[in-house]
Order: sequence, then C-alpha cells, then structure tokens
Amino acid sequence: MNDRIREILSWYASENPGIRTNLARMLNHGRLGGTGKMVILPVDQGFEHGPARSFAPNPAAYDPRYHFQLAIEAGCNAYAAPLGFLEAGVADYSGEIPLILKCNNHDTLHDEKDPLSAVTAGVSDALRLGCVAVGFTIYPGSAESATMYEQLRDLTEEAKSAGLAVVVWSYPRGSGLSKEGETAVDVVAYAAQIAAKVELPEAQKVYQKYEIPISTLADRVHHVVQSAFAGRRIVIFSGGVSVADEQFYTEVRAIRDGGGFGSIIGRNSFQRKKPDALKFLDTVMGIYETKNDRQSAI
Amino acid sequence: MNDRIREILSWYASENPGIRTNLARMLNHGRLGGTGKMVILPVDQGFEHGPARSFAPNPAAYDPRYHFQLAIEAGCNAYAAPLGFLEAGVADYSGEIPLILKCNNHDTLHDEKDPLSAVTAGVSDALRLGCVAVGFTIYPGSAESATMYEQLRDLTEEAKSAGLAVVVWSYPRGSGLSKEGETAVDVVAYAAQIAAKVELPEAQKVYQKYEIPISTLADRVHHVVQSAFAGRRIVIFSGGVSVADEQFYTEVRAIRDGGGFGSIIGRNSFQRKKPDALKFLDTVMGIYETKNDRQSAI
Amino acid sequence: MNDRIREILSWYASENPGIRTNLARMLNHGRLGGTGKMVILPVDQGFEHGPARSFAPNPAAYDPRYHFQLAIEAGCNAYAAPLGFLEAGVADYSGEIPLILKCNNHDTLHDEKDPLSAVTAGVSDALRLGCVAVGFTIYPGSAESATMYEQLRDLTEEAKSAGLAVVVWSYPRGSGLSKEGETAVDVVAYAAQIAAKVELPEAQKVYQKYEIPISTLADRVHHVVQSAFAGRRIVIFSGGVSVADEQFYTEVRAIRDGGGFGSIIGRNSFQRKKPDALKFLDTVMGIYETKNDRQSAI
Amino acid sequence: MNDRIREILSWYASENPGIRTNLARMLNHGRLGGTGKMVILPVDQGFEHGPARSFAPNPAAYDPRYHFQLAIEAGCNAYAAPLGFLEAGVADYSGEIPLILKCNNHDTLHDEKDPLSAVTAGVSDALRLGCVAVGFTIYPGSAESATMYEQLRDLTEEAKSAGLAVVVWSYPRGSGLSKEGETAVDVVAYAAQIAAKVELPEAQKVYQKYEIPISTLADRVHHVVQSAFAGRRIVIFSGGVSVADEQFYTEVRAIRDGGGFGSIIGRNSFQRKKPDALKFLDTVMGIYETKNDRQSAI
Amino acid sequence: MNDRIREILSWYASENPGIRTNLARMLNHGRLGGTGKMVILPVDQGFEHGPARSFAPNPAAYDPRYHFQLAIEAGCNAYAAPLGFLEAGVADYSGEIPLILKCNNHDTLHDEKDPLSAVTAGVSDALRLGCVAVGFTIYPGSAESATMYEQLRDLTEEAKSAGLAVVVWSYPRGSGLSKEGETAVDVVAYAAQIAAKVELPEAQKVYQKYEIPISTLADRVHHVVQSAFAGRRIVIFSGGVSVADEQFYTEVRAIRDGGGFGSIIGRNSFQRKKPDALKFLDTVMGIYETKNDRQSAI
Repeated sequence: MNDRIREILSWYASENPGIRTNLARMLNHGRLGGTGKMVILPVDQGFEHGPARSFAPNPAAYDPRYHFQLAIEAGCNAYAAPLGFLEAGVADYSGEIPLILKCNNHDTLHDEKDPLSAVTAGVSDALRLGCVAVGFTIYPGSAESATMYEQLRDLTEEAKSAGLAVVVWSYPRGSGLSKEGETAVDVVAYAAQIAAKVELPEAQKVYQKYEIPISTLADRVHHVVQSAFAGRRIVIFSGGVSVADEQFYTEVRAIRDGGGFGSIIGRNSFQRKKPDALKFLDTVMGIYETKNDRQSAI
Repeated sequence: MNDRIREILSWYASENPGIRTNLARMLNHGRLGGTGKMVILPVDQGFEHGPARSFAPNPAAYDPRYHFQLAIEAGCNAYAAPLGFLEAGVADYSGEIPLILKCNNHDTLHDEKDPLSAVTAGVSDALRLGCVAVGFTIYPGSAESATMYEQLRDLTEEAKSAGLAVVVWSYPRGSGLSKEGETAVDVVAYAAQIAAKVELPEAQKVYQKYEIPISTLADRVHHVVQSAFAGRRIVIFSGGVSVADEQFYTEVRAIRDGGGFGSIIGRNSFQRKKPDALKFLDTVMGIYETKNDRQSAI
Repeated sequence: MNDRIREILSWYASENPGIRTNLARMLNHGRLGGTGKMVILPVDQGFEHGPARSFAPNPAAYDPRYHFQLAIEAGCNAYAAPLGFLEAGVADYSGEIPLILKCNNHDTLHDEKDPLSAVTAGVSDALRLGCVAVGFTIYPGSAESATMYEQLRDLTEEAKSAGLAVVVWSYPRGSGLSKEGETAVDVVAYAAQIAAKVELPEAQKVYQKYEIPISTLADRVHHVVQSAFAGRRIVIFSGGVSVADEQFYTEVRAIRDGGGFGSIIGRNSFQRKKPDALKFLDTVMGIYETKNDRQSAI
Repeated sequence: MNDRIREILSWYASENPGIRTNLARMLNHGRLGGTGKMVILPVDQGFEHGPARSFAPNPAAYDPRYHFQLAIEAGCNAYAAPLGFLEAGVADYSGEIPLILKCNNHDTLHDEKDPLSAVTAGVSDALRLGCVAVGFTIYPGSAESATMYEQLRDLTEEAKSAGLAVVVWSYPRGSGLSKEGETAVDVVAYAAQIAAKVELPEAQKVYQKYEIPISTLADRVHHVVQSAFAGRRIVIFSGGVSVADEQFYTEVRAIRDGGGFGSIIGRNSFQRKKPDALKFLDTVMGIYETKNDRQSAI
Repeated sequence: MNDRIREILSWYASENPGIRTNLARMLNHGRLGGTGKMVILPVDQGFEHGPARSFAPNPAAYDPRYHFQLAIEAGCNAYAAPLGFLEAGVADYSGEIPLILKCNNHDTLHDEKDPLSAVTAGVSDALRLGCVAVGFTIYPGSAESATMYEQLRDLTEEAKSAGLAVVVWSYPRGSGLSKEGETAVDVVAYAAQIAAKVELPEAQKVYQKYEIPISTLADRVHHVVQSAFAGRRIVIFSGGVSVADEQFYTEVRAIRDGGGFGSIIGRNSFQRKKPDALKFLDTVMGIYETKNDRQSAI
C-alpha cells in the first residue's frame, strides 16, 4: 500500500479497521489502483429510468453480467448497482471487482417535485454478496430530505458496525431549489458536506464577499472538495447527462485539477457499444493518471 | 470538586450517577472549570447553513480538526457538533475536551415556516465516540413541535439510561410566532422550561400584571433562568447572529448578571481567524469569571 | 494531553474513540496524571474475603464512602469496586474520580481448587454509574478458565461497543498449577498476554535457553511487560498480600524500573488508618514519579 | 416524612426515585411506620416446607387471604409471598399493604447439601400485582452460589430499572459450611455484605485480633449491621425456627439494641391462631417502638 | 481472475457470493496469488503456549505488528491470529493482507487429555476488523468433540450469512486416540472431511483392503485431499513442530505432489529472525510455484 492511500485512509482514523479495509480495496483496485483516484461504474438506471431508456442504445446492457464485464475490463475501481442487478450477475464474478450495493432507488414513473427513494436493500444483502460498501441517494432540497437523512443514518450505523463503507449519492433536487440552483456551486458544496459524491456544479453564484475563486470549473471543484471537511473526505463527481466526449474529458481534467477524487460514470459508459465504452473509459483514466501540481496543494 | 459544582449537581439528584458524572465533566473542564459557568463551541453550521456560508470567512474552519483545536486552546467547557464532523476529527483529540454529539440537524435549503430537523445520530454513536452528552434542537412554535418533543423524549430516555447528559437547543420559531414573538421574553422563558439552552431574548412584552422586571437584559435573563425550574436547571444562552464585539460583551455581562450559566458561541468564534477568536473568547470567559452579587441571590 | 499519554493511546488505535477517551481519563487523573503511571485502589475484598477480614483492621472502611474519599485524597488514578459497593457511595462522589465497575466476584466460603467467579454486574450498570471501565477477573490455570474467557469475551464486546475500557485482573490459579507455579514468571507472563493486570511474579523458572534475564524483580517485570504485546498494553501489578512497607517500596521500584505501568493496591491501603494510608500511597506515587532510564528503552 | 426515614432513604441516593419511593412505602406503613424499624410477614413456607407442615397448626392459614388479613391487622410494614400465594389473595386487598413478591423458591423434598432455588416469578409479575419489591433467596456457602448471584444480578437489574426495591433473603448454607458455621457471626456478617436480610447469628467465632465485641447477641447484631456498608443498608433479621416467646422477645430486644432494622417473622406468626398471633406481633412491635441509646451511636 | 481460481471457487457454488469473494481474496493475494496454492501465517501460540515459549527465540515477535509485517513481506496469502493480537496491530495494516480471526483458543496451562478451546471472538469482531474469514479449532478424538462441532456449526451459520469464509483447524487429538493414532492417515483423512486444515499425517495404517496407496507421504496427502470431498475442498497442511529445514521442504514437496493446497506455517516462521524467516518462506513458496503433473490429475 503506497503513501497516498495510507494518507487517504488516515482521514478515516475514527472508523473501524473493517471500513478502512474496504476503502482500501476500492482505492487499490483496477487501473487507477494506488493513485488515490477512482472511476466507478454505476448502473441504477434500469431501476431509475426504466430499462428501455437505459439499455436500448446498447442492447447488450440488458444483461446484468454485461456491466460486471465492462467494469472489470475497463479497470474500474468498483461497480455499483441495485440488489436485483447485482444478484443476477455476481455468481459469475465473485471476487473480481469491488461491489457497491445501491440500497435505495427511485423510479421516475412519477414526476415528483420532491423525490423520495425506496429502500430496496440493506446491510445483510451487502455482506451476503461480498460488497465493500453500501450506496444511498439523498436529495438535499427535497421536502423529504429529513426522511432520507434518517434512513441514511440508520443504514450507516448498521453498515459501519459491519465494517462496510458507505457511499452517498448526493443530488441537490426538490421544490426548494430552482433548476439553476440545483447545480449552483454553493448548494453542491453544501451537499458535499453532507455526503461524498456529488454532481458537478455547472452554474455559478456570486462568491464575491469572501473572494472564493469559482470562475473556472476546477475552481468550483476545488471549492466543493474543500467543503467536504477540507478535502479529508473522498468526493467523486457525477458525469450527469450525456455530453460530447471532448466536453466530458475537459470536465474530468477540471475534476483532477480541482483536487476531485474521480468520476462515477453510468450512462456515458454503458450506453455505448463495449469497444467504444472501453476506449472512452481508457481516456478518462488516462487523464486521472496524469498528475498535476494543483492537487497536491489541497 | 468545589461547592458550587456540588450545588449544581444536587439539582439533578433524581438522575443517575452517570449523568451527574458527565455534567461534572463539562462543568469542571477548561478555563471556566469549577466556576459554574460554561462556554461551549458549537459547529453545526456546516450542515445547517452550508459550508461556504459557514467557513469561507475563515477557511481553516473547513477542516473538522480546526474546531477541536479552537475549543481546546480557548479552554471551552465542551465542543458540540454533528456526527460526521465529530467523526472526522475525534481520532486525533480523544479525551481532550468533553464532546456533545448533535443528534438532529436541519438544513436550510428550504425556507420552511415550520422547521423539523432530521435525526442524524444517536446514543450508540455518542458512546462509541466518548461523548459526555447528546444534543437535540427543538423549535417550540413550529407546527412540528409535537414530533420534535417525541423524538427528544425517545432520545432522552435512551441517553439517560446510558448515563449521558442531554443538551437541548431550544429556539422559539415557526408559523405560530411572529418574528418579534420569536425572541419575546415570555416565549423564550417558556422554551427554557422545556429545554436548557435558549436564544437571548431581545424583544419585550408587557409583564406588567405581576410586575416582573424585564426592563434590562439582565432582568430578562433572570426571568428566563427563573422559568427553568427556579434556576435549578443549567440554562445557556445563544449568541445568535454576529453583532459588534462590544455589544456581545454587554450581552454576556447581562447573562452573567441575570444568573445565566454561560454562552454557546458558534459563528462568532469560528468565523474569525484563530488568534482573533481566542482573544474574543478570552474576553467572554473573563467576564464570566468576574462574579457579581446578583447571581448568588437567585 | 502530553506526548506520553498520546503514545500510550496510540497503542489502542484500532479501538473506538470512546475507549481511548476513557483510558485518557484514567491516565490523566490524580497525582500521577500525565506520567503514564497509575495507582488504582480496588476494594472487592468485602465480597471476596468477607467484611470482617477486610475491614476490621480499619473499621472506617466498612462505609463504602470511605474508599471514595481515600482514593480521591490520595490522588489515585481510579477506584475499582463491585456493584453494591459503588452504588452505596457514588451518589456523593459522582465525577470526582474515574470508576471501574468490578463485574465478577468470587466469595471464599468455598476452598475451591478451580475458582470461578460469579458475574454480578454488567455494562448497563457501568454506564448508569458513570464508570470509565468494567473490570473482570480471570484465573488462567483454573479448570474453569474457558468459561471465564468466554464470559470475558461477551463482556468485552458489549463494553467496547459502549466506549468503555476493560480492565482484566489476571491471577494464575487453579488445579493445573503448583503453588510455586502460580507466580512463576513464565506463567505470569502468559497471563499478561491474555490480560493486563497481573500479580507480581515472585518465583523463578529457568529461562536459560534464550537467556532472558530474570534474576532481578525488575527483569521479571520487564519480561511480563514485554509479553503483553511488546509493552504496547498497559500492565499494572498487584501488591498481593501484606508485606513490610520497605519491601513493598522495593517492589514498586522494581515495577517502575522494569517498565511496569503501576500498581493496584487494595488491602495494603484500606486496612490502615487513613493518615497512614495516605502517607503510604504518597510514598508509592513518589517512586513512580521518579523516572528512570531503563523504562524509556522498552 | 420524618427525618429518620429521610436519612435512611439518603443511603440509597444512587438509586432512582422509584426505588426510593417503594422503600418509603414500606418504611412508612403500619404500626412501625416512620420509626425506621420494620416487621414483615413472609409466607413462603407453603412452597418451601409443604402446606401441612406449614398450615396444619392453624388451618385458617391454608387460605391465602388469611395472611393478607393477618399482616394488615397486625400493622406489619409489608407482606411477602410467592406468586401463586399472592395472586390468590391480592384481588381483595389491593393497596392495603405493601407487597413483596418472592421470586425464587426452594422445596424441601430433596435434602440437598447445596441448595439452589427455582426462579418462579419475575418483575412483570411484581408490577402487575402492584408490589413494592421483589424478593430473592441466596445461599452463600452453597456450591451453587455463583448461579444464585447471577440470577439475583439479572433480577436486580430488571427490578431496579422498573423502580422496584429488592429484598434479599441471605442464608449461609451449603457443603462449604459446617452446621455451626452457618450461623457463625463472621459468615453471617459476610452474607450481610452481599445481601440485606440475614439469619440471626447464634454461634461465635474468635474476633479477638481486632477486638470486635461479639459476646452479647446485641454485639453480634451490631457487627452484622456494620458489615452491611457501615449500617447504611437496611438489614432485617429472621426469627428462624420456633422458640419460646420470651426467648424470641429477648432476641428482638438484641436486634433493636444492636441497631438492626427489624424482624421478618413467618411461622412464629401464622402457625398460631390469629388472636395469639396479633398479640405476639403486638409485643414484638412494642419492643421496636421503644428506642434505646445504643442505636443512635451506630 | 484465472481459470484455476475460478475452478476452485466453482466447488463452492452453493455458498453465497460473499464467501466466494473472500475465498478469492485469499487465493489471489500475495506471491502465490492465482496459483491455487496458499501459505498462511498463523500466530496463536502466544495464547496457546504462552509468550516466552513462543517469542523468546525471536523477541521482535512479541510485538503484534511484527507478524503483520512478516506476512506482508513474505507475500503470504493470509495472516491468522486471535482477537487481541489482531486488534493490537490492525490499525496500522488495514487492507494490506487478508486476515483470519481465530475465534477459539486453548491455553496449555492444563495438561488435558480432552482439550476444549474457549470461544474468544466472533463474527461481529471479524466484520469490524475487516477479516475475510473466521478460524476455529476442533479436536476430533476429544471427548469434547460434540461441543466443538456444535460451536463450529453456530459460528459457521453466522459467518456464512455475513459472507465470511470459515477456516477450520482440525487436529485429531484426545483420549479416544493413541499418540500414534493422532497422525494416522485414516484419522487425518476423517478430520479432513470435517474441516479443511489438517496436520500432516506421519504414521501409517494398513490401507490394504482397498489398495489405497499410502506408502509415500505424497500418497498420504493425496488420500487426505481425496477424502475432503474428492479434492473439492481446500485442504491446507500444518507444519507442526520444528523440524530441520530440508525435511520441511521435503514435506512441502509431498503436499504439492499429493495435491494439497498449501501450508500453514507458524512457529517455523516467526521463531526465526526475519531475514531467515523470509528466506525460509521464499523457499516454501518456490516449491509451491513449481507445478507438477500429478496435481492436475486430481
């Protein structure tokens, strides 16, 4: 285990050794293993957006085993999915890649202003399947946020006592926020303090009073990371909706330059044919492998 | 243990020895240890108001360890924070200052008239982290107050049986109160009967019928303390929003002269650079160390 | 908190912050607070040997409050007693000295070859009374040792999850051991690996093959401490039966010189009149306050 | 409530207010209410010795309601019986006299050297029946004593958390003791430290070394009371087997003069016709009402 | 993951994916990772035989951290130790090597004919510490074997539901076996059917009836492996007491040639100075890396 990984683990010194072991398993796995950066493949769109909207662009992806293969071949640090999707493939790939069991899920049959996900899995499932972590989505900004925080608190207590890491998907969303506000840098930074995995902030807000630099995307990433306990929590950024590849790479460079810890890339990966997806992820990982000076200053 | 602390503990004679032990730990710690006065550093603004609004004025404060250091160096009686913020620093400072685990938290992404906090931590966390107390916020005046009282009752039952003290943050707030009413002396006194940590009342209301003196701030503090079981419960006052330092000191003198037990000072402490914060807290503690005659009469 | 205490706490890095907090409370309390040495007053003889045999030499000791006073006035690091004895005094002394609840006890109405203590208290009692630790006696060498190890394992699991430290009294005793063997240095070292509080070895055994020096008492203490995880566990030595004071002081010097962490002194303390006991303990603590070179080499 | 009862309750300051309330109910009830002395009627002989041996001398006593009436008419402080015996009469006498539910019982069909009672009732029964206390018998000296101590510990934890007092019947008995030793003053004093209700010691042992006076029965009572936390626990003495009335009164005077807290009188009460029993108990209570100088000196 | 590891995992197809994941973690770790062979470092001798007998030959081994380092540097597949020994080092080495928590332990202060180990740790500990497996010792042949089988069954049920592998140490021992019988090939084969880690059989018995070849050590290993579900369970052999290195290597070759899955080597590793130990283990692993034809036929 190299010094960078030891440093990251030291931020979690109040957690038990099991949690640190499972964090190490993710940080040391795959092509980015040992760099302190992570690329995670999440596939909860089948549940969240329905199978056709998710998998029709690449019908091989209807098969749950496809995503295990993609994550393994691409050298991702971990693969995250809901219970059913994991169960349908894990027998063939036990021990080949760290798994994150997504424990709540939200369908989009309803166009809710204030989304609340259903809790569909738990710690005993994660242990039985050999996962390194449980995942949970919160929507700060939703009128249901207090309920989600309490569900997350219960899951976290149980997971931690079993030595599992907890990965929180934090999407500012809900009636309390304007569409622009949902990705405003201060709201996203706020979410980052509560969780550890956030959407990349696109919009700007005036941070003039204290002269926080937020003019570049790297600046904004830096601010989000700083907001997560002064950079002492792993913050991974979500690619969000499909954009042109070059724009995506530019964002990844900004995440890297701003001190972010990596990307979680779902639709942008699995909605392409596999060779394309592998090439795309190869480029992303290549960017993360290239160190830059700014990061070490955080 | 001196006579004043013994006297205060005697008010809690119906509680078990564990609770009294943990109260004694707070009352005997730090610069004001043994005086019967307390200054507590609370840092839940990162969760409550978002990190940038909380920490940008003093970026060192993004790091959870900063607040442990500040509370220790200033000689506070205790440090209070939510679960994540405590976990991210406690490994480095175990046993150095009494800790209060803030068990519910309220984000401000919504502009709710009737706030209800989310329960984000509990007694098992407090024990695991070595805390002396759990903290809980109630909003008497909120339409959700009954829910909060019931959550508090459950937390209190579990905490007390484990020997933990319970610190209640009581802010009159909600649709049932006018903005002016929120800090009216009778409403605050009412809240004090329910809890033990209240905002300093700023506004006045007519207390003429029974000729309760409320003309000075010290009078109003005295009335609030009296309302909390005739002064037999520890009532600490919240500094609230930033004011000029001189005005703050004047208020602290009024708390002292009115028989209050101390201050809980968050933003006014950690939003300054550390040397300034230490000087500011030094002045506050100096005021509390200066006895006055009125207090002993309560 | 000074560097020596931080160093000791670092040996317990895999334990939760609550446990480390409670260890720090003992290590930082009383006259030896901060030295890394401890003197603990234990009073379980009333249960173990009967009240008259225990307290007739100093009738003031029939009163459970006497022992709290003695431990506080002498500046001990902690006071240890069974449930009833703690309950009968703790209300008057809450928060004045760290308490250890002795959770199993053994009466001596029977002359058993293979003693097994009764479990008479537990973690919920310790929390309710504000204790920093639970205590438990094992007799490696007893035919009942497996039962004791399993009881200890259950108690430890529950105590640790509640942030309590665990203090083990380890007395080699039982049908598997000769009287001489009970205090042989290798058996005692063995016990030290299982526990953390042991009787001072008096007899010798041949340690010739590997040339472990055990000719002096300090040598033997050193070997016992080394056996407890290379000195990375706190090992405290029991004074055992009454001996002449000068001999006792000589043994204390040997414990200090051999790198032991202190003494647990029951009958030798409370069976004297209080002024004598305070003077006796003052001498013992004075010896521990005097550093020697050998210790730092361990 | 008078000062003597307040003083006695102060010894139980670490217990919760519910326990102190139930102790006060016993101490303030009946003819001796408020004196600090107690006479309790126990009827577990039907279970322990069989109904004929118990009730044939006074056939009215076969009816469980008889004993409620006797205890009420005599002005006893409390009535103690096993579950079935209480259930069969309590409906008619709810609220008329404090009740103690005897939770373990021992039949005498076997002539065991090492008796172990069966647990036949529990805290939920005591609450349901409106009892002020649970009762439990231990036999220090029995080879089964560790089991009994652990059963008592479990019962006590549950009873105390429900605010019930715990009355322990402590009879030194078992293969570890000679018949003479069973009532030897040191063994009984020992038992008193573990419990609070003991048989009156008849035999003597040499207490010469520390010159503990045990030549008179009052001396021996005094030593037993002292052994129970320096007189800070209520110790009541058992009358044991039937003796001539005058001898019994002499023993009661010794209990009073030695500082004992009263008598528990079963067969000597209910095996007489009711008018005789009332007269007998009237004499006993009269003795306890007569203060003597020695008591106040303890 | 290569085909050999997939093949081994396929034998455990009825187990949940968590168990297979943890088996894969061991099989893929260290120098022998991926070969299907394993070398495990076990250190329970400190508890089993006492610290001096265990560690005096190499005093560095008194420190629990030493064994983590040795196992990591040597490239072992896993490190196995009791609870206290793991806890005292795991904070520094979380995530660096697969850990096996030894859940029962047997001291040797008694010279029992029918050993029964004490259960000293459990599944919750293993999860909290990040272990891949729990370990448990059975003594088929002991009069206490039924108790051990039942304890093992309970542990296994709980461990498997949490996705942990179970490693059984199976030593034929007890009053039912002659000293010679303890290592007889049929007894060992029998034990292998119950467990998966066995002592190397040294003695012979007549296997003539069915013409099972057992003339060479490789033959006997082959028979033991065959006895463990026709080679479809991982069987690892114990080195036992110290022998000359050349003899040890010869035995390792026999294990390899007989189709055994590897060695568990305790005292032969850690009782040497580290450079010697690393060289010794290097030789052992080199032997296992050298394929032979016979194995593939099993």
